[in-house]
Amino acid sequence: MEFSSKLLEKAVYEMSQLPGIGKRTALRLVLHLLKQPKEQTGLLSQALLNMREEIKFCQSCHNISDVAICEICSNQNRDHQLICVVEDIRDVMAIENTGQFRGIYHVLGGKISPIDGIGPSQLNIPTLVEKVKTGNIRELIFALSSTMEGDTTNFYIYRQIKECDIVTSTIARGISVGDELEYADEVTLGRSILHRVPFENSFKNT
Amino acid sequence: MEFSSKLLEKAVYEMSQLPGIGKRTALRLVLHLLKQPKEQTGLLSQALLNMREEIKFCQSCHNISDVAICEICSNQNRDHQLICVVEDIRDVMAIENTGQFRGIYHVLGGKISPIDGIGPSQLNIPTLVEKVKTGNIRELIFALSSTMEGDTTNFYIYRQIKECDIVTSTIARGISVGDELEYADEVTLGRSILHRVPFENSFKNT
Repeated sequence: MEFSSKLLEKAVYEMSQLPGIGKRTALRLVLHLLKQPKEQTGLLSQALLNMREEIKFCQSCHNISDVAICEICSNQNRDHQLICVVEDIRDVMAIENTGQFRGIYHVLGGKISPIDGIGPSQLNIPTLVEKVKTGNIRELIFALSSTMEGDTTNFYIYRQIKECDIVTSTIARGISVGDELEYADEVTLGRSILHRVPFENSFKNT
Repeated sequence: MEFSSKLLEKAVYEMSQLPGIGKRTALRLVLHLLKQPKEQTGLLSQALLNMREEIKFCQSCHNISDVAICEICSNQNRDHQLICVVEDIRDVMAIENTGQFRGIYHVLGGKISPIDGIGPSQLNIPTLVEKVKTGNIRELIFALSSTMEGDTTNFYIYRQIKECDIVTSTIARGISVGDELEYADEVTLGRSILHRVPFENSFKNT
């Protein structure tokens, strides 16, 4: 693609560094900004810079937060003995949206993935292990994605804390609510039979 | 969607103002920036700001340019008597990529579209009409999209310059090169028959 302006080319290049944004999409976005009032570009740039410079991570659960201890961790109405281990802050938002979980979280910041060069030391695993060993924790729920990397990460953490006297669990895998059985993949269907729940539990909502 | 940080919420909001970027995509992009070194966010913000503040439009053809008269308009090897009228600078880039056009351009900056509140006065039509009336122009090629708005714009310009002694043409509409006839829509197929070209012209490339 040839650009008639270096400024435009630079803006398109930087925009296309974002994941899922190719050169053409980047050009469309940048030209949209050119058609809008200058303030909009200013607001966008400032919001991104402010966020990148000033955002904090909760010292306890590593969730994104504006203060040192996030709202969830500082909420005394939540069950601080129950920790849900997730990969990413998006998972925290997804679980919070269900309204089904009243414990606290621990955000790992990724999964162990040697192929991407991510080892246990790059993740927030030591703080979790320390929390379990020193704190008053009853149960740890693993809510990582069920991929090779997710399972590896679960197992790595499990090995470090198996001496401790706590319950560990993983979220249930099975057929999505509303899905047709015939279209489900066999691994999921197999697991949903293996981990069947007593019928009288199945219509309890919480 | 509930955010654990106002800074994050603001960045996601501003990002989701871009066309085709919803809240979820915006969140994914913003979290990607958080995982990258701070410099990347700085470069992106700066590139967008620089572009928005400093970009110029060519005084002759209204194409984006870093100088007062763009490279195409100041190129003496191009045919300055042949003007291709386009909607957008992306169309200039697309036509330049074909390597088939050696004239100059005129970028309207949009099409007449009463439903979006865009009238002739918001487009670069007066400068085009003036160019045709005062300049030494041989031919005007309309290369707008073949929608109601495109046709309206073509016709509006045509009416203003029909007194002048110049040739006007529109780009050919027809079946795309490599396309199967059976899948073509009937309007396009109809036009391609109506505007058929002499066979000996069809394998000339320029």
